[in-house]
Amino acid sequence: MSTLRIALAQIDTCVGNLVTNASTVLAYAKRAAADHARIVAFPEMTLTGYPIEDLALRATFRQAAWDTAADLAQTLQQEGLGDLYVVVGTIGTDHDNGKPRNRLVVLHEGQVVAGYDKHFLPNYGVFDEFRIFSAGERSTVLTIDGVRVGVAICEDIWQEGGPVADLAGQGIDLLLTINGSPYEEGKGHIRQELAARRAAEVNAPIIYLNQVGGQDDLVFDGGSFVLDTDGTLLERSPMFMENLSFFTLDTNQTRQTPTTIAALPDPDEEVYTACVLGLKDYMAKNGFTGVTLGLSGGIDSALVAAMAADACGGENVWGISMPSMYSSDGSKDDAADLAHNLGAHYEVQPIEPLFMAFQDQLHLEGVSAENLQARIRGVIVMATSNSKNVLALATGNKSELACGYSTIYGDAVGGYAPIKDLFKTKVWQIARWRNKALTQGMGIGGLNVVGNEDGASGIMPASGVIIPVNSIEKAPSAELRPGQKDSDSLPEYALLDQVLAAYIEHAHGRADLIADGFDEQTVDTVMRLVDRAEWKRRQYPLGPKVSALAFGRDRRLPVTNAFRE
Amino acid sequence: MSTLRIALAQIDTCVGNLVTNASTVLAYAKRAAADHARIVAFPEMTLTGYPIEDLALRATFRQAAWDTAADLAQTLQQEGLGDLYVVVGTIGTDHDNGKPRNRLVVLHEGQVVAGYDKHFLPNYGVFDEFRIFSAGERSTVLTIDGVRVGVAICEDIWQEGGPVADLAGQGIDLLLTINGSPYEEGKGHIRQELAARRAAEVNAPIIYLNQVGGQDDLVFDGGSFVLDTDGTLLERSPMFMENLSFFTLDTNQTRQTPTTIAALPDPDEEVYTACVLGLKDYMAKNGFTGVTLGLSGGIDSALVAAMAADACGGENVWGISMPSMYSSDGSKDDAADLAHNLGAHYEVQPIEPLFMAFQDQLHLEGVSAENLQARIRGVIVMATSNSKNVLALATGNKSELACGYSTIYGDAVGGYAPIKDLFKTKVWQIARWRNKALTQGMGIGGLNVVGNEDGASGIMPASGVIIPVNSIEKAPSAELRPGQKDSDSLPEYALLDQVLAAYIEHAHGRADLIADGFDEQTVDTVMRLVDRAEWKRRQYPLGPKVSALAFGRDRRLPVTNAFRE
Repeated sequence: MSTLRIALAQIDTCVGNLVTNASTVLAYAKRAAADHARIVAFPEMTLTGYPIEDLALRATFRQAAWDTAADLAQTLQQEGLGDLYVVVGTIGTDHDNGKPRNRLVVLHEGQVVAGYDKHFLPNYGVFDEFRIFSAGERSTVLTIDGVRVGVAICEDIWQEGGPVADLAGQGIDLLLTINGSPYEEGKGHIRQELAARRAAEVNAPIIYLNQVGGQDDLVFDGGSFVLDTDGTLLERSPMFMENLSFFTLDTNQTRQTPTTIAALPDPDEEVYTACVLGLKDYMAKNGFTGVTLGLSGGIDSALVAAMAADACGGENVWGISMPSMYSSDGSKDDAADLAHNLGAHYEVQPIEPLFMAFQDQLHLEGVSAENLQARIRGVIVMATSNSKNVLALATGNKSELACGYSTIYGDAVGGYAPIKDLFKTKVWQIARWRNKALTQGMGIGGLNVVGNEDGASGIMPASGVIIPVNSIEKAPSAELRPGQKDSDSLPEYALLDQVLAAYIEHAHGRADLIADGFDEQTVDTVMRLVDRAEWKRRQYPLGPKVSALAFGRDRRLPVTNAFRE
Repeated sequence: MSTLRIALAQIDTCVGNLVTNASTVLAYAKRAAADHARIVAFPEMTLTGYPIEDLALRATFRQAAWDTAADLAQTLQQEGLGDLYVVVGTIGTDHDNGKPRNRLVVLHEGQVVAGYDKHFLPNYGVFDEFRIFSAGERSTVLTIDGVRVGVAICEDIWQEGGPVADLAGQGIDLLLTINGSPYEEGKGHIRQELAARRAAEVNAPIIYLNQVGGQDDLVFDGGSFVLDTDGTLLERSPMFMENLSFFTLDTNQTRQTPTTIAALPDPDEEVYTACVLGLKDYMAKNGFTGVTLGLSGGIDSALVAAMAADACGGENVWGISMPSMYSSDGSKDDAADLAHNLGAHYEVQPIEPLFMAFQDQLHLEGVSAENLQARIRGVIVMATSNSKNVLALATGNKSELACGYSTIYGDAVGGYAPIKDLFKTKVWQIARWRNKALTQGMGIGGLNVVGNEDGASGIMPASGVIIPVNSIEKAPSAELRPGQKDSDSLPEYALLDQVLAAYIEHAHGRADLIADGFDEQTVDTVMRLVDRAEWKRRQYPLGPKVSALAFGRDRRLPVTNAFRE
């Protein structure tokens, strides 16, 4: 036989939840078999979830993962799927040194019949794999119905040499790579270019199968694809949703037949959907069904509220307006309009009586009194979080997080910060896009969103927008003293965001920034703010390490962790 | 010549503060030369500070560090110290791939005359060196006055093979290792046993020179030492303080002559001093001269206040008693006594009026109402922190941090948590020791402590104790509802701390813990609490990554960072 039908199961797993992850594999395997697949492939570390961080170091976890793979192989057999080759990621153990390994296994005829260990262990950016895994040394080729399938795991195709170079010398018919590649704006085309180079290198088509879903602070965007030997796109799965697609390899043909190619979202939709999916999955995987947040009438809280309503339905969003003596009427109206547009709960808790009660005792002035207002709001948001058992959302954006332009334990309160990685100028852009998406009836990354006909709330506001135009257009202000504007303390955002991008994302130093054309005073202001802000981002976990294992940088555990053994 | 006089400069550096670090090197080099040293050795990454985390990835920082080393070599020459061999740690660049390297350089006759790059890059526990450095491949032997000195950096001696094995084959007269080895309880003897093995391996005496001082959540304990070829201790520097000591190697002798051997602190003094030094340095390196904290009358805040007074003087400690309707009179008295004993500022801010003001609006019940009390206290502590520009201290211990038994944004408020790595049972033990140290007039790690004759405050309380006995002996309670005790929610601490040690420090799973003899119910309670508490420890930085570089696990920057270029 010279054809091989492969199912690409782009699924959303949960770290530590071996039982649920195995069930998902079984369900997709059934669907794959029903559609005549010989192989069904799942993402990197399917059974364990990914990334598992230091949970990998727990021996009971590795044992349980091993048992899960063995049990799953038997269950597949019992369910009449023994013929199917099920390729899943999991954790293994290096028999030489006992260290964990990032492993791909093949389940077939009730057994774990083959394995491959990831060779290149990324240890930059968000990755810490050299910390927890030892590296595999051998390449693996599966021969199925006479077709030679080489396998690789994620970083293996990002580095020169290693298993791909090895496979290139062995003559394979297909390269199958399973991935847990986190979302970054515009990363899709980088993956595709890279995969095209590897297809050329091994002289065969390549399947790039990616994980989908949010895990703590990462979002996996899916967007799995198949390229022909010459780089032609043969298949593309949608981004940001679970999906099962099929590709049939015919080794008698030099050109393969294309199949379904999902459309790509536009760049703003892509970012918006990534944020919504990250929040939605964080809630689901940590047992939250609703959220609460302060609604100031400003753009940050408005965008976060819209994302939250799209993630869990407006009826599960508790918005709290907490006006002070410095809040403008416009701000209060904008907050109310927003909540109405989203179908969210809306409550007004004026902070003035509370502020006066504190001031009777504390007599604070200046920034201390400004922070007090923000902290009273933080207390109210957390009271709602506790009493309604909903997740508190922090509404800070990347510009203010970078500069420390927020009150710690005040507006920075929250268990999850949906827009913490969006610069302020991007916040405005995405908010405008969200309004446009509504009026044009555009879908949003397959999500069931507020305002769309099939949306959770089905509301179409009379104003024709979700986010009040005033929230987008007015000059940003913390409203903590009369007439305050962000621009009193920070450069204008259009400039600030450029400096921040150069300083943070491109690691430019002072001299580089001045050479970039930014004026000295702006550069010095921004550098001073950014360098100091790390202090705010790292409260409480900071304290001296005394024992062999302290909390903090010693132990790197996933927040989402369903493992209980 | 067959003798070589070496100065061991055990100094405290600051990450990013190239100028100050270079000045300290110059000052110690002068003292070393005045006492006829030929070589003066400094700790790992002396010029840059250590650990520098992702600051290593900034090109301007590497350039500035390089310039600093070159300038320092010239300054030493100009100051008449050109003859001296000055061994310092710094950052280098790998010319093949542009990656940073963890480098040792030798300054002599106005030049950087030799270099060695760390071979083994630790990437476990608190270490992330594989992430930021590339590994050196060559060993280096310095020949000075005919004496062959092999060099190594920290982890190089912790792993088998590598540069030490290489040096063993080359015949050296002395092994000099420069270190940034963080403190852990009881680690001193492990280092010494290891060094003895390496001395035997290279068949020569070994100098183990360690950094001292606090850097973010690490404390470096110093305790540098020299061992003879047979492992005999020849020199030991004191722990927890800067120090310059000397050792003269005579290659004509098979046994070297011992010199100063500093006494070791007792185990409780060691832990206490580590916590005080960590706090003291965190304050100094981040520009704080005072602290504030809530004084509940309980043991945690009492011990933290004592540490703070020992770190910065009682007159720089602002203690705030914040009684509620549930606070016992005993608690209020204990808080007042403690502040008096420490010579600390003491203020009473009843929270009942504030609590009533919130409840008029919020009508909270149960745990939500308990958390409200703790959060009102958090607001007051932060108000003091802001208005007096002092560091807020969190008083949580490791047992409650592990179990999440605290109110986020409430008692967990603070920029630094001095006892976050002490289990509750250890808190009691250390508090008792601190009282005993006072009454016996014992020194504390060379620190100028409250109550000692030469102490900063010079107070000897009439009670004969610093920490009120009642704070140590009463049953622990959060006092957030009538008659509340910690034991209502947690196993007794004597048991809890054992389970926590087994679960956290030894990574025992559920089955292991039951095999350890703990009952199932306790095991399940503790595992559930601990697994959930990660959520509390990781607030706000958590949110979806959208760009190539987000805050959170992407960028790992030191909090203390004085670099401004």
